[in-house]
Amino acid sequence: MTERIREFLRNRREDGPCLVVDLEVVRDNYMAFARSLPDSRVFYAVKANPSPEVLSLLASLGSSFDTASVVEIEMALAAGATPDRISFGNTIKKERDVARAFELGVRLFAVDCAAEVEKVARAAPGSRVFCRILCDGAGAEWPLSRKFGCEPSLAVEVLEHAHRLGLEAYGVSFHVGSQQGNPQAWDQALASAAGVFRACAERGIHLSMVNLGGGFPAKYLRDVPAVETYGSSIFEGLMRHFGNAIPETIIEPGRGMVGNAGIIEAEVVLVSTKSAEEDIRWVYLDIGKFGGLAETMDEAIRYPIRTPHDGDEMSDCIIAGPTCDSADVLYERTPYALPVSLAIGDKVLIEGTGAYTTTYSAVAFNGFPPLRSYHI
Amino acid sequence: MTERIREFLRNRREDGPCLVVDLEVVRDNYMAFARSLPDSRVFYAVKANPSPEVLSLLASLGSSFDTASVVEIEMALAAGATPDRISFGNTIKKERDVARAFELGVRLFAVDCAAEVEKVARAAPGSRVFCRILCDGAGAEWPLSRKFGCEPSLAVEVLEHAHRLGLEAYGVSFHVGSQQGNPQAWDQALASAAGVFRACAERGIHLSMVNLGGGFPAKYLRDVPAVETYGSSIFEGLMRHFGNAIPETIIEPGRGMVGNAGIIEAEVVLVSTKSAEEDIRWVYLDIGKFGGLAETMDEAIRYPIRTPHDGDEMSDCIIAGPTCDSADVLYERTPYALPVSLAIGDKVLIEGTGAYTTTYSAVAFNGFPPLRSYHI
Repeated sequence: MTERIREFLRNRREDGPCLVVDLEVVRDNYMAFARSLPDSRVFYAVKANPSPEVLSLLASLGSSFDTASVVEIEMALAAGATPDRISFGNTIKKERDVARAFELGVRLFAVDCAAEVEKVARAAPGSRVFCRILCDGAGAEWPLSRKFGCEPSLAVEVLEHAHRLGLEAYGVSFHVGSQQGNPQAWDQALASAAGVFRACAERGIHLSMVNLGGGFPAKYLRDVPAVETYGSSIFEGLMRHFGNAIPETIIEPGRGMVGNAGIIEAEVVLVSTKSAEEDIRWVYLDIGKFGGLAETMDEAIRYPIRTPHDGDEMSDCIIAGPTCDSADVLYERTPYALPVSLAIGDKVLIEGTGAYTTTYSAVAFNGFPPLRSYHI
Repeated sequence: MTERIREFLRNRREDGPCLVVDLEVVRDNYMAFARSLPDSRVFYAVKANPSPEVLSLLASLGSSFDTASVVEIEMALAAGATPDRISFGNTIKKERDVARAFELGVRLFAVDCAAEVEKVARAAPGSRVFCRILCDGAGAEWPLSRKFGCEPSLAVEVLEHAHRLGLEAYGVSFHVGSQQGNPQAWDQALASAAGVFRACAERGIHLSMVNLGGGFPAKYLRDVPAVETYGSSIFEGLMRHFGNAIPETIIEPGRGMVGNAGIIEAEVVLVSTKSAEEDIRWVYLDIGKFGGLAETMDEAIRYPIRTPHDGDEMSDCIIAGPTCDSADVLYERTPYALPVSLAIGDKVLIEGTGAYTTTYSAVAFNGFPPLRSYHI
């Protein structure tokens, strides 16, 4: 919570939940990344928070942009980024979207299979491609499936295929899992990446770049290591696995760039119990899983919640959203302690909500509008 | 799939997934409910699909409306419903929303605890309230939590509290769980409701109405019993538990009213495997969990998918959406058999998607627009 956000909320009069993001925190985060990984280019993961204010600020600070769609490419351009600072980082692209990105000047594309390479070769000839490899994601709080990437042995084939089709086989990417609490998590992935570099070199293909992905955590309830710790751990990994031929590197922070910059103000709509015998309270807020807090899915992300009664006696609650959907429950398996004095009408502050909230919110579920946001 | 939808899609030229709903199917569904439960008033659950075309059609057929928010009340009124045909069925309401509903003429409110009764008594004096009771939801495909309702013993207190505060203690509601495959599921809940009626009568409070909720299934992959079967099973339950004093009844179909009326057309963006050794294909569509298929959460709802190659040899696939979110996977734990000849660029039809799709879709996640829809 920053003084600027506190001041903004003090003067706010409208009804309904809202997100407030302090751009000064975003600026500080960018500087910390730039300082902690001085040899890496920062490609901000636009999907984390694509607000024009965040994008313009980061563009002015010199950031590059990792984008997931043509719309995100257009937003990055509108914010002042030149096309050479944009990566089309989604491994799942329609060929006509690759063509549109190419028209817009983008020359850097993610791939993870031969079919995707062929789309890029046809629609964005001569471009750079990097191949995403699978990584186990141990230590991450947001589930990492095998959705993106391929086995390192297949990556070598994919990059060779790109090379043969006239693309520049540029490098390797991976993702150690979102909200990654272990700075050592990059080590194993860097070992795999170095293996792909060697296998490609044996085929006469010289890769240049390792995309270290995102995964840098935001502080929620638990403390997380500082960005500096991640920076030095990654640098050691690079030296260990690449020796004196350290490649260019890219990082793609999203959550780590904007997560802790935002706070959602919400309202307690109801506090109740289900029977005369049960102690556990149900606390219903005016925001839930479909209003911006999608990352509470499977109770993955546990946000800190501040109330006007902090310091009072606490007791366990189940926290749920305002919709008529029974799945719209935030924390139930692991109940959440809140002050016993919490009452209907109280405003609560949900911290660490600058990333992956606004754009996840449903367009109109139950008639509720999408999450409102202010970037100050 | 109806001939009208087939014809519409044949002439469609735009890019991106879309939902097409055949209003004639909605009309048929309404008539089936009216015929199968002739003594029940139908309150369509607006949240299932609040498109103006659906609401206007149902209003013209004589339907009433179960609403979750002030916006949904306004939409039902705009579609031609009079306020006496509207229930504010969400048990989680801000007091100012209760007041706004009262101003709009609504006089029927759901409650499940004393605090909610007090809001209604203050903001909508003299109105009718029904108390939702908990129900175990066995046999339902969409998870039913304990989010809504209270134990029947507490319901008696809640209704007595309403009576004392000058409200009309009108009845009891329950929900047997969405996509309920067992027509007998209403029996146990009716027994509980009858118990609440008796306990209230002993206190001199005579309830009038049982709200039988929704839960009526749409056909997805498996066949479901016909609405007639539900109707007769419910009628038997009413006779068994209420004898010759059968109360007024309400039903709140949502999925059962519009689910089978809609089809989503989507496109195969990518088909790939993760290594040279693995057989299982990953099929990536241009729609996923955040683009309207939220009900694939935990693989709860398994939609039928038609392809241009149906009839060819089949093999197991993991099906995923187009976003850069690793959680955006539709079916993985239980893989989905699709034709081996399925190719990038193919159009697929996702059936049974008329309910709980459009409004669940994210406002702009990854830059993708919300699900487009047409009601014909």
